[in-house]
Amino acid sequence: MRVFIVGTGNMAGGIATRALAGGHTVRLVGTDPAKAAALADALGARTDGADVAPAVPDAVGSADMVVLAVPFDAARQVVAEYGDHLAGKTVVDISNPVDFATFDSLTVPADSSGAQQIAAAAAPGTRVVKAFNTTFAGPLVTGEAGGLPLDVFIAGDDPAAREQVAELASSGGLNPVVVGGLRHARELEGMQLLHMALQNRPEGHGWMSALKIVAS
Amino acid sequence: MRVFIVGTGNMAGGIATRALAGGHTVRLVGTDPAKAAALADALGARTDGADVAPAVPDAVGSADMVVLAVPFDAARQVVAEYGDHLAGKTVVDISNPVDFATFDSLTVPADSSGAQQIAAAAAPGTRVVKAFNTTFAGPLVTGEAGGLPLDVFIAGDDPAAREQVAELASSGGLNPVVVGGLRHARELEGMQLLHMALQNRPEGHGWMSALKIVAS
Repeated sequence: MRVFIVGTGNMAGGIATRALAGGHTVRLVGTDPAKAAALADALGARTDGADVAPAVPDAVGSADMVVLAVPFDAARQVVAEYGDHLAGKTVVDISNPVDFATFDSLTVPADSSGAQQIAAAAAPGTRVVKAFNTTFAGPLVTGEAGGLPLDVFIAGDDPAAREQVAELASSGGLNPVVVGGLRHARELEGMQLLHMALQNRPEGHGWMSALKIVAS
Repeated sequence: MRVFIVGTGNMAGGIATRALAGGHTVRLVGTDPAKAAALADALGARTDGADVAPAVPDAVGSADMVVLAVPFDAARQVVAEYGDHLAGKTVVDISNPVDFATFDSLTVPADSSGAQQIAAAAAPGTRVVKAFNTTFAGPLVTGEAGGLPLDVFIAGDDPAAREQVAELASSGGLNPVVVGGLRHARELEGMQLLHMALQNRPEGHGWMSALKIVAS
């Protein structure tokens, strides 16, 4: 697949690492072209297949999947600004709409989720999928936590789009877990709120931990 | 601690097993006295310290902790019926208010949780704690899933009551994870909804799986 990643931060690097490990090509775009180029170089040092797009419209047309590897507010802004370009595409929302001042609440209403709000801001036909919101950059780069493959929880209303994201995860050595429709992003964001608060405590789990369903 | 368990089903058995392993005493009560006696016998065969109370009021006065090991509707009914007896006690709600016809929704409003509704039905001063809703009977009996100690996620407004439940978990070989105030029961119930739906699928995780934060 041709995976187009909006964002050049740690999460973009983590998801790009797994996408490249899965044999996909990665195209990056960011507001800072130098940062995008540096990330592509860093990724390209390990594998070929990562390059940089000058802007969202230049790359999205040929992409099989668009990953919004940016914070929630920026992700909503991207889909609002480039909506027509994203129509018909699988668009992956990885965000956690957390009140970072307190780590105690989400910033979206109780009966909604960041993913649903991004879908509401997107052009009709955009296939928004929630994924990777419980897998942070460190574990994504290694592909595991505690020696176990990361679970990638996936919620979306379009079954084909969900399967695309599941394929991205499994090809990169991760364990996709499709939980259902996009409204279940709420539960994923809620649990990750708790997880992030635990990670953020001085004596807490730290940022290399991950949420997983373990089975005997 | 003297742990009083309301309920005689699989969850009562699982929690009693861990409480006894931790050196606590267990008193059981159920609507079917024969079932309560049978469970006490089964538990007593492994360790001493499990007996049966004829009714809730007979046992609760001497209990350090009351575990409502019954479904959500029954738990709410118990606190409503025996509210005065439970005032001042640590009362553990383990329930998942899931729509079992669909496994796709909770039966409580989006801005609430089963635990908060149970607290609202309880007498003032009852110290309701959410715990054990993501750890089912099979893994509780063994104390682990996938070779890892179970995480027991704990939410409650009273720090001392939360610590009591954490002590019950850790003394029984489990890993307590205090996530915060009782309103965070919502996130725990929401994530467990997703987990149960996955467990319930024919090709799913099965009922021996557990939700865990794994760390490198």
